[in-house]
Amino acid sequence: MSRKDVAIIMGSQSDWPTMRRAADILDTLEVGHEARIVSAHRTPDRLVEFAKGARAEGFRVIIAGAGGAAHLPGMTAAFTSLPVLGVPVQSRALSGQDSLLSIVQMPAGIPVGTLAIGEAGAANAGLLAASILANSDDALRERLDAWREAQSDKVALYPADGD
Amino acid sequence: MSRKDVAIIMGSQSDWPTMRRAADILDTLEVGHEARIVSAHRTPDRLVEFAKGARAEGFRVIIAGAGGAAHLPGMTAAFTSLPVLGVPVQSRALSGQDSLLSIVQMPAGIPVGTLAIGEAGAANAGLLAASILANSDDALRERLDAWREAQSDKVALYPADGD
Amino acid sequence: MSRKDVAIIMGSQSDWPTMRRAADILDTLEVGHEARIVSAHRTPDRLVEFAKGARAEGFRVIIAGAGGAAHLPGMTAAFTSLPVLGVPVQSRALSGQDSLLSIVQMPAGIPVGTLAIGEAGAANAGLLAASILANSDDALRERLDAWREAQSDKVALYPADGD
Amino acid sequence: MSRKDVAIIMGSQSDWPTMRRAADILDTLEVGHEARIVSAHRTPDRLVEFAKGARAEGFRVIIAGAGGAAHLPGMTAAFTSLPVLGVPVQSRALSGQDSLLSIVQMPAGIPVGTLAIGEAGAANAGLLAASILANSDDALRERLDAWREAQSDKVALYPADGD
Amino acid sequence: MSRKDVAIIMGSQSDWPTMRRAADILDTLEVGHEARIVSAHRTPDRLVEFAKGARAEGFRVIIAGAGGAAHLPGMTAAFTSLPVLGVPVQSRALSGQDSLLSIVQMPAGIPVGTLAIGEAGAANAGLLAASILANSDDALRERLDAWREAQSDKVALYPADGD
Amino acid sequence: MSRKDVAIIMGSQSDWPTMRRAADILDTLEVGHEARIVSAHRTPDRLVEFAKGARAEGFRVIIAGAGGAAHLPGMTAAFTSLPVLGVPVQSRALSGQDSLLSIVQMPAGIPVGTLAIGEAGAANAGLLAASILANSDDALRERLDAWREAQSDKVALYPADGD
Amino acid sequence: MSRKDVAIIMGSQSDWPTMRRAADILDTLEVGHEARIVSAHRTPDRLVEFAKGARAEGFRVIIAGAGGAAHLPGMTAAFTSLPVLGVPVQSRALSGQDSLLSIVQMPAGIPVGTLAIGEAGAANAGLLAASILANSDDALRERLDAWREAQSDKVALYPADGD
Amino acid sequence: MSRKDVAIIMGSQSDWPTMRRAADILDTLEVGHEARIVSAHRTPDRLVEFAKGARAEGFRVIIAGAGGAAHLPGMTAAFTSLPVLGVPVQSRALSGQDSLLSIVQMPAGIPVGTLAIGEAGAANAGLLAASILANSDDALRERLDAWREAQSDKVALYPADGD
Repeated sequence: MSRKDVAIIMGSQSDWPTMRRAADILDTLEVGHEARIVSAHRTPDRLVEFAKGARAEGFRVIIAGAGGAAHLPGMTAAFTSLPVLGVPVQSRALSGQDSLLSIVQMPAGIPVGTLAIGEAGAANAGLLAASILANSDDALRERLDAWREAQSDKVALYPADGD
Repeated sequence: MSRKDVAIIMGSQSDWPTMRRAADILDTLEVGHEARIVSAHRTPDRLVEFAKGARAEGFRVIIAGAGGAAHLPGMTAAFTSLPVLGVPVQSRALSGQDSLLSIVQMPAGIPVGTLAIGEAGAANAGLLAASILANSDDALRERLDAWREAQSDKVALYPADGD
Repeated sequence: MSRKDVAIIMGSQSDWPTMRRAADILDTLEVGHEARIVSAHRTPDRLVEFAKGARAEGFRVIIAGAGGAAHLPGMTAAFTSLPVLGVPVQSRALSGQDSLLSIVQMPAGIPVGTLAIGEAGAANAGLLAASILANSDDALRERLDAWREAQSDKVALYPADGD
Repeated sequence: MSRKDVAIIMGSQSDWPTMRRAADILDTLEVGHEARIVSAHRTPDRLVEFAKGARAEGFRVIIAGAGGAAHLPGMTAAFTSLPVLGVPVQSRALSGQDSLLSIVQMPAGIPVGTLAIGEAGAANAGLLAASILANSDDALRERLDAWREAQSDKVALYPADGD
Repeated sequence: MSRKDVAIIMGSQSDWPTMRRAADILDTLEVGHEARIVSAHRTPDRLVEFAKGARAEGFRVIIAGAGGAAHLPGMTAAFTSLPVLGVPVQSRALSGQDSLLSIVQMPAGIPVGTLAIGEAGAANAGLLAASILANSDDALRERLDAWREAQSDKVALYPADGD
Repeated sequence: MSRKDVAIIMGSQSDWPTMRRAADILDTLEVGHEARIVSAHRTPDRLVEFAKGARAEGFRVIIAGAGGAAHLPGMTAAFTSLPVLGVPVQSRALSGQDSLLSIVQMPAGIPVGTLAIGEAGAANAGLLAASILANSDDALRERLDAWREAQSDKVALYPADGD
Repeated sequence: MSRKDVAIIMGSQSDWPTMRRAADILDTLEVGHEARIVSAHRTPDRLVEFAKGARAEGFRVIIAGAGGAAHLPGMTAAFTSLPVLGVPVQSRALSGQDSLLSIVQMPAGIPVGTLAIGEAGAANAGLLAASILANSDDALRERLDAWREAQSDKVALYPADGD
Repeated sequence: MSRKDVAIIMGSQSDWPTMRRAADILDTLEVGHEARIVSAHRTPDRLVEFAKGARAEGFRVIIAGAGGAAHLPGMTAAFTSLPVLGVPVQSRALSGQDSLLSIVQMPAGIPVGTLAIGEAGAANAGLLAASILANSDDALRERLDAWREAQSDKVALYPADGD
């Protein structure tokens, strides 16, 4: 298992319960990753340093999660040409609608591949990162396809009563 | 220039003026691509056949654009583990808010990397596809970085009056 | 009571507490029905098989419930010309606004008759299915009209204090 | 071709350019229909009379279109147990978001099967009415299936340049 | 204190905790009122009868509260030229945004004076009804002005800590 | 025709094309009125003076129209216990959604009866003012009822083709 | 520490738990401030008096928080040319979307510098007030810069598990 | 007239027709300013350099305008403790709702004083900058107060017909 293919960065500790879902899926698929806190607003120098050096550090995909006026994914993408995937963290007042629009509505020139608001989006960022890496890693592709098949198989045919 | 690394699919002919922006950027970056109309609703069998066979056809990234109740990106992703990038086409009544939510709010398990509504999103889908492919293609990465540098250089220092 | 006039399908087990309201109303009206889990994203082949075979299985109306980027109703309608009724399940972050737009904003050519978000919508999907079937079943129409009359009669004239 | 299976009602003359799409599709499918103006607000007595008498007039499905605070579909459904399909007409200030919510968010007990905002929704209301009637009319079902097949066949494989 | 100047109607018992705020304020201002349940959808005949007879019953202002696809205020206004005030009750999925748009976006010709979503709106409907009646009732106007003055006087100059 | 029963105030000259609809309907119903520009933000002293003196000037109902952060109706209501009706003028960026929420979401204690966004709302403010005044003016009530009857009679039975 | 550079006003006692965050940050930065309740709707005369006299009282920046149809910041700005900062308090039904639009969408001529919905916005209003005052107070600027530096330093490098 | 008190920065040339309104008002008030294009996404290094050096360049207030996923104001504020005022430029698909939320919803710690969407917001950013500077410039305060008084005086008493 190669370390550090995927960087998972987030704006604050409070985003971790959401972003951990990305780490979990990457663990399951045996994709090396590292999680860091990089606040676009409170640690902007750290952001610049991280984003500029991410390729040299060996990262091949960056997953960035943030909430509210979520500038982390877009600003990371501004400083690197690595693929950046954005996860809108559910915000308190606006339930992540602000996070989603702040991440997805990037102008032409600097892309961020945006996933769903919250935990589903974080998990899917992990899966999309894996599918990107699987383009040049047949073993990973097989693990990914197996995971997806298992996921399909786990869907029951009939809904179950009881709670 | 290898043909067919990227498939650009769209729900109807009317999406082409938007999605052409993805093709243009891929042309500029010399990334092989092919554009097809695949309607999730009007040609669902074509969708299934395309998505299941996309990897075998040699595609490595799929860009899917659709508007309104935009099911094409998500359903394509359901049938293939290739990376799928979604472009919400601007819809008539709701300006693409329906397209955006229909594409981005995927449940955990099946990811779609979503770009901005409209032409900016289509151009960025092309750029993100290129950055994904550049992970295993140094020459492409250099072309991509050069394109980005040129983009930066073209930004004037001062706004110009006149119209 | 003829079995299987109405299929109630849903994207996951978690939709059942909502969709059970459709089953309840159909039970009350003595309309045969069957509930199944069919995930557009996690079991797309099951979706295709179900939708293509639904008429042959004897179903005459399909009720489909899903949340978030809810593709199940529209994709089912793409594979069958049976009447499809869609129920937007209330989603976590966006309270079902995403579910609603993903279901109702279908393009011309493939219709989904959409009901309200959540349990009210599920109950009404059952009632609308019954009214559709009642067009060629006078006994059912009488049961439906009686149910509606009873519903009207149960509305008190004055609000009651106390909790 | 039996006259009057479907009533197409609308709140005002200004809704006709939208609702005509329902009439067109019913014409194509040879389904008898009649269009009337019934304003819930300006002609409420006409609404009551129409809705109470619709079944006796021989209608089997009602399509109701309205915009803004669109009460026509829901109030029609309150007075008849015939299937009622609602079309949210695109409004001036809010682009039909008000029409959509006013029609689709019916409380449990009185269903309205709601279609998309605007012309797509009107066309689909016609198609859904046809699919409802086709449950007991094999010839209509064949015409409907043929129409859908032709619709699929008309989708080009590749997008065409030029404007 | 004259009985029955104001009718407070609501779509269901569940609206009463909200609408009671209107009754409370009218009690305080000694304005005669009567609260009834009138469901536009489940008891449409009761609605027609009530609205047509409201003036003859002696009502001079009608306060109507409803949630979701809230048709009660607008349909009441369609059947009477008495002033109708609408209160959007907070709905479960959409927090009353559907109720608000369904009530306020009336077409030209039939007005509903709409108040805020929820309890504040209900209280204000009572106050607005009082101000309408006060136009021809000097004693009521004095009570209303006194109530408002007392309300102003109760506003503390400084916020208080503690919870 | 008594002068000055209704004051029509608006935030700026640009609101007049909308608010004129209120004046038109009051002209038709022979209700005395006067239109003034009172900007809550640019002429706050004029607002205070107007609102405090409105009853003494003889006004019995105030119609206030404004757009964007529309504070005119609510602030007028804060300074007078006359009935205040608010008209949200359609704004440029947000189509009047900001105007609507700024006017209708008043806290408990100070009511504004809010009408629809734009011209329909302005016309209805005129009608609601007339219905308020008609409570103590039988001749006006007869004119209002006649106007409403004529409005109903003008609704054609069938939609007309042509453009 | 000079008293009274910043006034913190709010529409009601219920806004204090939010607005206290502004006071806390100003305390930390040793900026003199005073908090008062000034309701635009319930105490409009107090608003006028406060806003007209604020400069004479020695205030140099005003922070105004309110919820719903939040008129306090804008009306304060209408009566004074001091810088006014607005804090949208999270409202019950609409989560502060109404507060935000009511505060930020001011017409050209009367500015309100608006912060985020809720506690984050209140804290930031305090910080922005400090940065405004720091323009002519080097010691304050140093305290502000030190506070910001400490804030950056407190951001951990890695997210911590556990709860 | 001191040069360079206010920097007006914007994400692209296309924002200039909006942001010019800030420059115009500052010209009128004789406040020195300079306009530059600084794209957070296309020229991120320029952004860092500008923001870090802004105080040393002599700027005392920064006005930053951007559209869509508008990161310029917030990222500028992350690199300087000067007061930053944000102007949401009206975007194509979402009319500036994305711009507004991306700018205003900043997390606690880094404030941006946000103005209205579009030209009104740009003009008001100029006015707010002037009011900030006026705190330590009596002559400017007099010009600002005179401008505001003239603005008030220009408001006509009655609306004018004609087009």
